[in-house]
Amino acid sequence: MDLKAVILNCTLKKSPEVSNTEALITKVVDLMAPLGVESEVVRVVDYHIPFGVESDLGPGDDWPQIYAKLRAADILIIGTPIWFGVRGSVAQLVIERLDGSYNDGDPATGQFPLYGKVAGVIVTGNEDGAHDAAGTTLFNLTHLGCVVPPNVDCYWVGDAGPGPSYIEAGGDRHLYTNKTARYLAHNVAWMARLLKTNPIPTNLNELIAEAKTVSR
Amino acid sequence: MDLKAVILNCTLKKSPEVSNTEALITKVVDLMAPLGVESEVVRVVDYHIPFGVESDLGPGDDWPQIYAKLRAADILIIGTPIWFGVRGSVAQLVIERLDGSYNDGDPATGQFPLYGKVAGVIVTGNEDGAHDAAGTTLFNLTHLGCVVPPNVDCYWVGDAGPGPSYIEAGGDRHLYTNKTARYLAHNVAWMARLLKTNPIPTNLNELIAEAKTVSR
Amino acid sequence: MDLKAVILNCTLKKSPEVSNTEALITKVVDLMAPLGVESEVVRVVDYHIPFGVESDLGPGDDWPQIYAKLRAADILIIGTPIWFGVRGSVAQLVIERLDGSYNDGDPATGQFPLYGKVAGVIVTGNEDGAHDAAGTTLFNLTHLGCVVPPNVDCYWVGDAGPGPSYIEAGGDRHLYTNKTARYLAHNVAWMARLLKTNPIPTNLNELIAEAKTVSR
Amino acid sequence: MDLKAVILNCTLKKSPEVSNTEALITKVVDLMAPLGVESEVVRVVDYHIPFGVESDLGPGDDWPQIYAKLRAADILIIGTPIWFGVRGSVAQLVIERLDGSYNDGDPATGQFPLYGKVAGVIVTGNEDGAHDAAGTTLFNLTHLGCVVPPNVDCYWVGDAGPGPSYIEAGGDRHLYTNKTARYLAHNVAWMARLLKTNPIPTNLNELIAEAKTVSR
Repeated sequence: MDLKAVILNCTLKKSPEVSNTEALITKVVDLMAPLGVESEVVRVVDYHIPFGVESDLGPGDDWPQIYAKLRAADILIIGTPIWFGVRGSVAQLVIERLDGSYNDGDPATGQFPLYGKVAGVIVTGNEDGAHDAAGTTLFNLTHLGCVVPPNVDCYWVGDAGPGPSYIEAGGDRHLYTNKTARYLAHNVAWMARLLKTNPIPTNLNELIAEAKTVSR
Repeated sequence: MDLKAVILNCTLKKSPEVSNTEALITKVVDLMAPLGVESEVVRVVDYHIPFGVESDLGPGDDWPQIYAKLRAADILIIGTPIWFGVRGSVAQLVIERLDGSYNDGDPATGQFPLYGKVAGVIVTGNEDGAHDAAGTTLFNLTHLGCVVPPNVDCYWVGDAGPGPSYIEAGGDRHLYTNKTARYLAHNVAWMARLLKTNPIPTNLNELIAEAKTVSR
Repeated sequence: MDLKAVILNCTLKKSPEVSNTEALITKVVDLMAPLGVESEVVRVVDYHIPFGVESDLGPGDDWPQIYAKLRAADILIIGTPIWFGVRGSVAQLVIERLDGSYNDGDPATGQFPLYGKVAGVIVTGNEDGAHDAAGTTLFNLTHLGCVVPPNVDCYWVGDAGPGPSYIEAGGDRHLYTNKTARYLAHNVAWMARLLKTNPIPTNLNELIAEAKTVSR
Repeated sequence: MDLKAVILNCTLKKSPEVSNTEALITKVVDLMAPLGVESEVVRVVDYHIPFGVESDLGPGDDWPQIYAKLRAADILIIGTPIWFGVRGSVAQLVIERLDGSYNDGDPATGQFPLYGKVAGVIVTGNEDGAHDAAGTTLFNLTHLGCVVPPNVDCYWVGDAGPGPSYIEAGGDRHLYTNKTARYLAHNVAWMARLLKTNPIPTNLNELIAEAKTVSR
């Protein structure tokens, strides 16, 4: 296992409640293991994470320990349920807390802590909203420095309207979801290994300095 | 120049009307040139591209010639204006026509024609909607096979409500936009060069076959 | 029939190709008829509508005749397929052309031509994206002056990944879709009738003048 | 004052921290007062609202008291900051908790508790994302039963990239924002008064029963 993945399960439900998103996450974890990826799954809502946009909100804030895990990982995957057509509030909370990482750039290169990590998303919902949840999340992660390989959104949703969720609906035997779980696993693992020996060289500080010379 | 970029300008305005999106595209082209990237800018609306989701809709369809350019490129950048908070209709049309590329996969690996190409976006609007336009577009491109490096969305928007566009507002001296234009140029060039010598090896056909064994 | 509805079918397919969106539109038309609503369905792609943001782009532009229908209607419903998780390009084109209506405000009140008309949406796709397509479209229509009653988005989508469309999948017997088709029909008809005898009195010109006194 | 509005300030910041969203909310409150609207502003993050999708999560859950306020109001306005291009996590949390209201329908009509209430949104951000935040929120509220009049999204955002927020930037003198604040105030007040004497008569239970006769 030469690669480390952290997967944030952004379900709204605390342990030990059953999480449909976790069921799909587990499948991806099992697919990544033989590819040399050791995974740690963190159920965010089991921690005390206050709302905010800084990396450390002081005593009682559990975010710093999750943030440390992310910084040490090669691969960052956000697992989220869909609520009202978009990603759930816990996923949004996580992205907001990552706003603080912009302040933790490398002094020499200006690269943010997540620069060059490989991102993926896992989404479940009983219906509709996977594209929005996945697209918004992956895009946010590129802002924060991550690389997005092709086909790294694995999702399951049922047809229009309320209905059974992933586990109850037998989503674990849905071909499209099983196919994209494999695409995700292979592409994040391969890309993370490639970037490990070929880190992104871009010096953001130099580019900002250059941009200033042609800006107001 | 060892790299080739195709930039689709998805303005609604035909040549020779002035396109704000083109003004920002030109800036990015100039930034990519010294990095070894030769660019071709295609103003889509100057061609006859019927609505549809296939790669060739027959006589009078100009899409095949644009599609051929994309297939020969290392870097694919979509430039689009914002209308009503989202990407313009021409950008949506382009993405829809690319749906046909799913049918043109490599027989051996199943990889779609855009697999492993590097994507970026350039967005202009007189206000609001850049995140939606950029995020949706980059996400769609990862579905089609592209890799998205960090910070490859370069945009300019004014403040709330109608107002002057990029050129009139002097957006060419806006620091944030000039900074992200450089991030985009450097990261797409570096990533395209890396992928040229390290093509994505994932065999989609094999993964589909494997997924079928555990699916209904 | 005291109410007039115009329903724009924004399928990408020209007549006489079968349109799944039209199949669901027809259902809604049949539900509105006994409620006193006479419907006209316009398949936009059968007309020549150039890209643009003005109400009349000159000779050969068919938009003015569709625009006239919209102005004469009490109810405006946009029917659209989903492509790549969002509304199709033809729906986007229609919304863009409506941008021109901001310039056709009533001289006395400043109200745009669609002010006080009642909006609804009908969406079909083989999977995922109905919330985004419906939400974006209804929101745009409120900007243009429309009123949105509750539950006026009727949609059908299948489960995750490619699959059969509305007609082939037997979507006409999907309970959620049939339920929301009725919600839509009843709520737009009732609201349109209410607004016909109680037009919105807001004078936008006066409010702009007032706003100017407290703005830069 | 014959109308009651509840405005949920979904800032991430607890009292007494200064909230930019609150500054714009206050402006709208002052504009609605002379129109007969009594407003109550609730800063959600000052309460203990657990993540979830039910109306009452038991001891320590403050949501039931906010929910009771909403049920007693004629007008419901969500005020939210933008983070990463979309509405903040607290606004998403509020919408998720309202999912529980679907279970509290009127036994006779099936109408959910928010049926016929009038919705509006107030959005602030230092840049980009107002359309997405406003559109998603208003659309969700129509699902929950609200009516959306024209032009009831009042927002302020600065130009591209990080920058000063509403208060610091002098957004209180921005014409577009001041204009739309007035549109919002007048249209929600007028519509709420109209609906008070003309409640929506739609019987959802009957329509579901009818839909079942034609569905699987």
